[in-house]
Amino acid sequence: MNAKLAEIVKYAHNPISEYDLLVEKLIKQGKEIIKLNQGDPAIFFKTPKHIIEAYKRALDEGHTNYSSIEGVSELRNKIKERYHNLYNLDFDEERVIITNGVSEAIMFLNNAYINKNDNVLILSPFYPIYIPFAKMRGARIIFDKYEEINDEWTINTERIEKIAKNKKIKYMVLINPNNPTGAVLSEDKLDEIARIAKKNNILLISDEIYDEIVYNGAKFHSISEFVDDQPYIIFNGFSKDYDATGFRLGYAIFPNKDSLSNKLLDAFIKLASLRISSNTPAQYAMAYALDDEKEHKNEIYKMRKEIEKRTNFLTEGINGIRGMHAVRPRGAFYIFASIDKKVFKVKDDKDFVYKLLIKKSLYLSPGSGFGMKDYVRFVSLAPQEILEKAINLLNEFEKGA
Amino acid sequence: MNAKLAEIVKYAHNPISEYDLLVEKLIKQGKEIIKLNQGDPAIFFKTPKHIIEAYKRALDEGHTNYSSIEGVSELRNKIKERYHNLYNLDFDEERVIITNGVSEAIMFLNNAYINKNDNVLILSPFYPIYIPFAKMRGARIIFDKYEEINDEWTINTERIEKIAKNKKIKYMVLINPNNPTGAVLSEDKLDEIARIAKKNNILLISDEIYDEIVYNGAKFHSISEFVDDQPYIIFNGFSKDYDATGFRLGYAIFPNKDSLSNKLLDAFIKLASLRISSNTPAQYAMAYALDDEKEHKNEIYKMRKEIEKRTNFLTEGINGIRGMHAVRPRGAFYIFASIDKKVFKVKDDKDFVYKLLIKKSLYLSPGSGFGMKDYVRFVSLAPQEILEKAINLLNEFEKGA
Repeated sequence: MNAKLAEIVKYAHNPISEYDLLVEKLIKQGKEIIKLNQGDPAIFFKTPKHIIEAYKRALDEGHTNYSSIEGVSELRNKIKERYHNLYNLDFDEERVIITNGVSEAIMFLNNAYINKNDNVLILSPFYPIYIPFAKMRGARIIFDKYEEINDEWTINTERIEKIAKNKKIKYMVLINPNNPTGAVLSEDKLDEIARIAKKNNILLISDEIYDEIVYNGAKFHSISEFVDDQPYIIFNGFSKDYDATGFRLGYAIFPNKDSLSNKLLDAFIKLASLRISSNTPAQYAMAYALDDEKEHKNEIYKMRKEIEKRTNFLTEGINGIRGMHAVRPRGAFYIFASIDKKVFKVKDDKDFVYKLLIKKSLYLSPGSGFGMKDYVRFVSLAPQEILEKAINLLNEFEKGA
Repeated sequence: MNAKLAEIVKYAHNPISEYDLLVEKLIKQGKEIIKLNQGDPAIFFKTPKHIIEAYKRALDEGHTNYSSIEGVSELRNKIKERYHNLYNLDFDEERVIITNGVSEAIMFLNNAYINKNDNVLILSPFYPIYIPFAKMRGARIIFDKYEEINDEWTINTERIEKIAKNKKIKYMVLINPNNPTGAVLSEDKLDEIARIAKKNNILLISDEIYDEIVYNGAKFHSISEFVDDQPYIIFNGFSKDYDATGFRLGYAIFPNKDSLSNKLLDAFIKLASLRISSNTPAQYAMAYALDDEKEHKNEIYKMRKEIEKRTNFLTEGINGIRGMHAVRPRGAFYIFASIDKKVFKVKDDKDFVYKLLIKKSLYLSPGSGFGMKDYVRFVSLAPQEILEKAINLLNEFEKGA
């Protein structure tokens, strides 16, 4: 049988769920697994009541048919208002496309803009899903690294500028606030990046999905505050700020009207037309929920405070373990911790995650999946008693117990 | 700027929404457009109350977080039961993957199985979305045609067998009941196709999304009743039978456990892992709704009867128009009618659709988008008074009024 699979399947891999099948098996064997691998706030914080009610209203109103390819007008309008209110950014409703999570926006980006051997620039560590969609299109991925300086993760704009000068880069991705480091970029860095992208004709992708989840004194700035008349796309969604991961609603904004932005917007819509629309009642739900700004402010304030507390608690715990070190995050809900292979007697980060899972029933994500070996990623969303247990398990693990 | 779009964008095109932008413009100008272009039952038949209630229950129960990549176990189990009850087909729950509509399943199929220059066999007329996803992967599409014989659309298995012998075909698609012809294949034809596919090592794709919408004396048979120990995939979903298009939930079943089926199932899951999960509350909604078989039988019976009535009424009306002819459908809710270009004084089917829209505010889909020129597709879901208006408009259009 001519049964050869597509070559691109080899790139289809999500390291966050690397050991999911094993975890399922262990659970079936009666083990209790502490999962700190998936960034899903809706597991630990109930999706706000006003959003649930808005969803039910959408259903009662009969919004159960296909909606428009680009997303329902009511929701696109609310997104426009949101970016106006938060970042003083103005654009037409027509510049927003609703997607099935940011994942779909990432897929559209690569299907719309990448041909074989095109260069794209991605900073490690990164949200893993950016890689497979680029590779499936034949992109060459150029990596540069975040650095740990003065107990903060940050980017090296000088080095990025050199890369941008020497290679023809089609797009570059900023994930800010960052998954997995929790870094929030300064105004200076964002300004530099916008300038470098413009000067070198690089399409700028700003993934701002954690924009309302910053703490420890950090202030988030949207890339839109720094760009000039240059092409850029903002990715965002309702999974994190609105604690509604299961709705699978993201969006892409093309604020500027330069020719590339226009062409890409058009290409996104064409690609989106192949799947008709996103879930319709969920779109109306978010449109109605965004009407209630006061309720949202209240909810995000509480969640942010709690995430700050849990993240700081877990970071401190990690830093108390021999052979581990983590920078204190200032955004999102992840901690990216280095591991000393000698101390833990492991081959690499994957081996660490595997052994920790088997021996101690604690499930983390290997750093190599995010582009940095010898690190692991923690999700800091669980309640303090669970985080405490995790720290104890890690201490036992370090001691070889 | 190195601003060349991806070459594959040129394939991303959905002919069903070909003139959507124009329609929007006309509506803004105050025109009332009769849209018989989109196969969306939820516009004309309210999504059943028990499904809405099930959705609200899912929300109340807090099913708002990411769910598993493959889909929630509760729903996959119900799908397994459904195929057992309806077609006496048995498979493990693990052989089902929930997708964002059948569209996503079509995308996975091509991303999982197609390399450049692989041949695939598609029968015209076809559901248009099969084409772009195959072309975006570089497939060569071999077409064969449905034929109008004895006032029925059917397939020519002799010719298909010849093609299968002469070309290495990787997969072949059956859409049964058919969109856009309304054909329901006989047991003999299905048996022949299963045999041809097995003999020639062709993966068989059976798109059965209209399986419960057959009438005018037709009986639907699933391909699963005729296959042997050979690889095949069933595509289905909740948009049509359950009148819930806006939920965007489809599924793919890999009933057999041959090596290709196993490899493809694994590849689908890997590809699905890149978008984490489908909308979670909608999945639970359908799991709960499928529990209530009695309610569903009641609802689908009413809808089927009504669709039969409307479809027959519209077919008769079409056949009363000079220069048009349509076979009476036996499934789904489309009528695929030929047009006489001379009678209507049009260049082609696109010109027909465009002029009818501009002059008479009636919106159909051009047959060429479904692989057959000189045809147009009608959706027969609207109430009789609207269908009557449409027929009057067509009569006026024919008379040049």
